[in-house]
Amino acid sequence: MLPTIILMICVLVHHHQFFSSGEVITPKPILENGTYINPELGKYHSRLRTLSRSCRDIKEKFGATRDGIYYLTTANGVMYQTFCDMTTAGGGWTLVASVHENNMNGKCTLGDRWSSEQDSDPKRPDGEGAWVNTATFGTAEGATSDDYKNAGYYDITGEDVSVWHVPNDAQLQNWAGTAILRYHTETKFLSQNGGSLYHLFKKYPVRFGAGECKDDSGPSIPVVYDTGDKDSTTNLYGPTVRDQFEPGFITFRVFNEKKAVMALCSGIKPTGCNTEHYCIGGVGQPGECGDFADLHDLPGASSSKEITEAAVLIFYR
Amino acid sequence: MLPTIILMICVLVHHHQFFSSGEVITPKPILENGTYINPELGKYHSRLRTLSRSCRDIKEKFGATRDGIYYLTTANGVMYQTFCDMTTAGGGWTLVASVHENNMNGKCTLGDRWSSEQDSDPKRPDGEGAWVNTATFGTAEGATSDDYKNAGYYDITGEDVSVWHVPNDAQLQNWAGTAILRYHTETKFLSQNGGSLYHLFKKYPVRFGAGECKDDSGPSIPVVYDTGDKDSTTNLYGPTVRDQFEPGFITFRVFNEKKAVMALCSGIKPTGCNTEHYCIGGVGQPGECGDFADLHDLPGASSSKEITEAAVLIFYR
Amino acid sequence: MLPTIILMICVLVHHHQFFSSGEVITPKPILENGTYINPELGKYHSRLRTLSRSCRDIKEKFGATRDGIYYLTTANGVMYQTFCDMTTAGGGWTLVASVHENNMNGKCTLGDRWSSEQDSDPKRPDGEGAWVNTATFGTAEGATSDDYKNAGYYDITGEDVSVWHVPNDAQLQNWAGTAILRYHTETKFLSQNGGSLYHLFKKYPVRFGAGECKDDSGPSIPVVYDTGDKDSTTNLYGPTVRDQFEPGFITFRVFNEKKAVMALCSGIKPTGCNTEHYCIGGVGQPGECGDFADLHDLPGASSSKEITEAAVLIFYR
Repeated sequence: MLPTIILMICVLVHHHQFFSSGEVITPKPILENGTYINPELGKYHSRLRTLSRSCRDIKEKFGATRDGIYYLTTANGVMYQTFCDMTTAGGGWTLVASVHENNMNGKCTLGDRWSSEQDSDPKRPDGEGAWVNTATFGTAEGATSDDYKNAGYYDITGEDVSVWHVPNDAQLQNWAGTAILRYHTETKFLSQNGGSLYHLFKKYPVRFGAGECKDDSGPSIPVVYDTGDKDSTTNLYGPTVRDQFEPGFITFRVFNEKKAVMALCSGIKPTGCNTEHYCIGGVGQPGECGDFADLHDLPGASSSKEITEAAVLIFYR
Repeated sequence: MLPTIILMICVLVHHHQFFSSGEVITPKPILENGTYINPELGKYHSRLRTLSRSCRDIKEKFGATRDGIYYLTTANGVMYQTFCDMTTAGGGWTLVASVHENNMNGKCTLGDRWSSEQDSDPKRPDGEGAWVNTATFGTAEGATSDDYKNAGYYDITGEDVSVWHVPNDAQLQNWAGTAILRYHTETKFLSQNGGSLYHLFKKYPVRFGAGECKDDSGPSIPVVYDTGDKDSTTNLYGPTVRDQFEPGFITFRVFNEKKAVMALCSGIKPTGCNTEHYCIGGVGQPGECGDFADLHDLPGASSSKEITEAAVLIFYR
Repeated sequence: MLPTIILMICVLVHHHQFFSSGEVITPKPILENGTYINPELGKYHSRLRTLSRSCRDIKEKFGATRDGIYYLTTANGVMYQTFCDMTTAGGGWTLVASVHENNMNGKCTLGDRWSSEQDSDPKRPDGEGAWVNTATFGTAEGATSDDYKNAGYYDITGEDVSVWHVPNDAQLQNWAGTAILRYHTETKFLSQNGGSLYHLFKKYPVRFGAGECKDDSGPSIPVVYDTGDKDSTTNLYGPTVRDQFEPGFITFRVFNEKKAVMALCSGIKPTGCNTEHYCIGGVGQPGECGDFADLHDLPGASSSKEITEAAVLIFYR
């Protein structure tokens, strides 16, 4: 039993040395008999120790309480790092994606990874297909400067989503403080849709021409606000469209009058059919195509400048 | 000798705890005196323990027998993860690349990383040069949804290749089962060509205009089928071209009549010169340029829909 | 105290086993009582042991003396690997970026990540904004085959920069030997500019139309040559422009007569205003836009073929 005993000891050593209830802490450098123990290595070990399938697991199994970068692994054993929100509404939220508009005037041009990077093309009604495939791109620390999609997007089985609208190019440590809108769902709607947006969008394809406005909309889920409220949500969109939706929801897979499709309407439930003006991830006619669809071109756009210049960060729990 | 003894013990402990003849296994969670040992961490350690230059090394040095994701390292010490086929024909196959066509109508447009992403351009006869440079892209789990090229493509010294045609967007755990064509070589032809496609294509440049049909073709190697056979291979291509090749081979670097170049002809040896219709990775005239060259446009294309909508996964051993 | 003692022992074991004053060394395989210790794993552990925020820290804290790939971590705990130059002028240089021109005739086309990938567009005066955001791309081993930007670009606090011009597609182990120009600064100018180019370019925006030639140039810093000299630097540029700059400097953020902007002029201080011909990372008029701006199109371009076909590697210390 000696091996087992020593293993237990080792675990205890590390436990006390570098690791306190799952928090990512900075151990002091130890210098003893000239032996140097690297503090960055200590922080790495404390992060690695909580390696899990999701931030929720890290929270529940290891009691992590600090927001930050953690290590995750897919079912197949692919390791990656992403941001965990361990504080909002109980914490345990995994950042799995961000939708970042790199060119408001580019309609389905380079960088529109969530819609189409090669124009509006009837022969490619699914655009890049990013909502329903396992391609990944970007990084957690770059999530406000570029599109981001990690393995958790398709690998994690979650119950709810959280969404943050964070100003472009904000650095990770400032996301929570600078977000112009933050909310989450509590209905466990993902459980009825395969446990992820990857599976939800297989059920509700983001495909140009595949449905009609209103009749074929996907789920619309009520949200709980963490930053902002229904009024501030409404005011993030242009004055001319504020009567075309109801705030306080997140809505998935909607069509407009010309059968252009959008993947999600953040913070709202459309009541009208000009969804290209307030929903994102759109594939459709030229001018109605792009990661941010046609948000920018409506009159009074200035009032939505805040939202058009913020990345949409998507979390699972 | 105490240190050495303890090190030996540790190795043994881990050996029995997490690691059985190199297989990636799931250790049960151990709870003892309130000390929690993380099973995901255990799986990580068992994967890391076999860190090698290639899947073949993992197979031979550690007796790994399970297909899946393993850790590899380049000579310079860059670590990466990829899929190892540990079962086909003795196993030890490293996935180093996939050629995925994201737009059959896009001829050398965005996403044609193995040919040219910027049109057919006589001033760029090598296109992106991906076959002979050390740029990498994509991920193993995304290899059927996007182009993939890892460090093994240029770092590993192999003897043979294996090729899988897997339907687009199939998930890793379903690759082997859903592949429409799988074969491998056994002639050790890579040993005569520098040990990798990276070196082979330096010897046989994939350059538009650099040679003539037939006269300047690169090596054509007989293959052993793992899924499918010569007849099924023939039937994957269009009826109008089935008399222009001989099945049962993989052929590298061929030219067509207009001096367009293609990097490889999968499963066949061309006997005709319309190679743009059945070879891939092509740089040439407009319409003969693209990751899948001109496979799609021939009459009876439907009969090759299977192959045009499958990613071409390339392994070394 | 037993745990602590054992931990000390372990550290010593590893120290002697795999690790000698921070150098990346190859331990011999150890076979004892049939227990195999993996040499690649040993090399990995010796690399991981020096995990730090910068190559300079690895040099100073662990006495690393060998050029090569090391592990770094950002303040947030994101781990990455890059190349450390541990020998030039005392060593401790971290490779944080490379500017690679993939298409000399493509003016702000795909792959121009340091300028604009979507044409010259007055509505996008900052182009991709890569100099001042946290998006990353590429890999260390691919730095001469594709653009490269790692987390160190924005995370590391440095004092000086080093620049290597390395022929396209050269492999990492050959960089130092094949470089056509290498130099570094010694003025600690980064300390007055936020400690990185990320912060320097926030102070001196790389924005088309934001300034005038000469009047609004950013800092011009004298350099010390490691490969080449003032004469060889001059000769790397075209004969028609050699009277328009003074060699022996690196200059940041300059404008030309048409208010086109370039991020840096490597090895020189412009005295004229045709900066698009000898400065890189440019956003401006069509033809004056691209990672290598307009270097190639000037008369006598052949004499600068060397520099137009070499990647510009950027280090911090």
